[in-house]
Amino acid sequence: MHKEDFNNKYKQFVSVIDDALNLLVTESKTPQKTVYSAMRYSLLAGGKRLRPVLMLAVCEMLGGKPEDVVPYACAIEMIHTYSLIHDDLPAMDNDDYRRGRLTNHKVYGEAIAILAGDGLLNLAFETMLMHAQNYGSDLKRHVQAMKIIANASGVEGMIGGQVVDIEAEGRDISSQQLEYLHRHKTGALIKAPILAAAVLCGADETYIKCLESYAEKIGLAFQIKDDILDVEGSFDSMGKSVQKDMKKEKSTFVRLYGLEGAKNILSSIIQEAVNQLDVFGDKADFLSELAYFIAGRQS
Amino acid sequence: MHKEDFNNKYKQFVSVIDDALNLLVTESKTPQKTVYSAMRYSLLAGGKRLRPVLMLAVCEMLGGKPEDVVPYACAIEMIHTYSLIHDDLPAMDNDDYRRGRLTNHKVYGEAIAILAGDGLLNLAFETMLMHAQNYGSDLKRHVQAMKIIANASGVEGMIGGQVVDIEAEGRDISSQQLEYLHRHKTGALIKAPILAAAVLCGADETYIKCLESYAEKIGLAFQIKDDILDVEGSFDSMGKSVQKDMKKEKSTFVRLYGLEGAKNILSSIIQEAVNQLDVFGDKADFLSELAYFIAGRQS
Repeated sequence: MHKEDFNNKYKQFVSVIDDALNLLVTESKTPQKTVYSAMRYSLLAGGKRLRPVLMLAVCEMLGGKPEDVVPYACAIEMIHTYSLIHDDLPAMDNDDYRRGRLTNHKVYGEAIAILAGDGLLNLAFETMLMHAQNYGSDLKRHVQAMKIIANASGVEGMIGGQVVDIEAEGRDISSQQLEYLHRHKTGALIKAPILAAAVLCGADETYIKCLESYAEKIGLAFQIKDDILDVEGSFDSMGKSVQKDMKKEKSTFVRLYGLEGAKNILSSIIQEAVNQLDVFGDKADFLSELAYFIAGRQS
Repeated sequence: MHKEDFNNKYKQFVSVIDDALNLLVTESKTPQKTVYSAMRYSLLAGGKRLRPVLMLAVCEMLGGKPEDVVPYACAIEMIHTYSLIHDDLPAMDNDDYRRGRLTNHKVYGEAIAILAGDGLLNLAFETMLMHAQNYGSDLKRHVQAMKIIANASGVEGMIGGQVVDIEAEGRDISSQQLEYLHRHKTGALIKAPILAAAVLCGADETYIKCLESYAEKIGLAFQIKDDILDVEGSFDSMGKSVQKDMKKEKSTFVRLYGLEGAKNILSSIIQEAVNQLDVFGDKADFLSELAYFIAGRQS
């Protein structure tokens, strides 16, 4: 797939998601307007939308209808965004900037930022449930998809990873522990849209296994690249403070393997991820290119 | 219904819920053990379990099977507990005590308390979805019940009420605004278990309308009593700081109508609530007694 075709396709997916998110969290004149405004501030801050893009791409590859998965894709982006808002809080990572703008609590205060995060997590489930109730015979699949997403964002998924991350600060951890941390903190919510899309589109076991393996590998690759960018990136390209992991003595792949070592691991994991897609032939071109995109991104 | 029979029945319901919660959030040796411990600390702190008791009582009155609703009842208690953990945070109400013990962040620190709250909200949905997937033809009802609960805890429900509460601090608000605040902050999550149980048990429209009206009235009564207890209660009976609403100049029914005025309103609302149950005859004895219990409670 040409890079330009990939970029256009990516933008197209992002625009579907942005439009849907914009409608799901509207400007409001109700007494809750402050929290809606705080939710919109972070949700519509123009992130990469990697997770929803993955969901739409898998759906398209498997011949599913986008309208069946868009609400789930939006829900996952809401969950991702809430986790960033809470993660940035003074009691957590204490970050002032995110995506080139002040963090949520810097604009709305801590109390509203906490509630905006809670509100987004809750709205993710409201969105999925409202959508699911339109389905009759397929309802079982929809409940399964919601369960995949719920588990991925919970204590055995993303939240668990954040806990381990907090506890690992300033301590040396093993390479196994580091992988565990990232498989949960970042990996779980990259895997969820892929698996949920596969389930919603009725993919068979073989397909699901290949997609699961692809998902795990790009999830890990995403985190290794994050660690590399923390060292090599600039505030301008990243839109957030860099080298903060290093300063906080956080365990990272760069700290464990050195910069070159981390880059080598990244390359081979991307190759392994792409290999998992063989079974889908040409149809997997976008997902294959997406793996390289993750490794090459500058923000 | 004799007071003793009521008390025994109430204890019986509580014990069903406590046992189920204890199994749903287990002690853990995994890397996430700190957050599980923090979640258990607040979830198993022995609250009144009013919301799950309401759900079991409505289910029993309508002839439903308790096992069909217990996971939802537990989910609602998880949501209630997470909201208390976040509400107690320094950035919110900044409370040191809750149910006679140190608040979550006082024991586990703010970061873990935030994540324990997030974890409980997320686990509520995981619990409901895991349960729902066991149902075939009834699945639509289960999705509807989850949606009722999700909406009640979201920005158009409980979270919305909290936002309005924060913004009302130190300001005079009208009686309409005060009712709005409480209908959302407390009322929504008292109504949800009643309506969700009715839907799960297949209640008809007339029954649902009566139960909805009962729910709204006891929800409001609960909050008025809370305001009265903030003035009349002691730390020993309440297990938390009292007179804090007064000190913070929060809008309360007592502030708006005076202590005697608030007590009079409470009495008539309880009577109205009980009247809504006429249609159920003797079967509603427990729910009827429960309304008086809410008005008479000392904690």
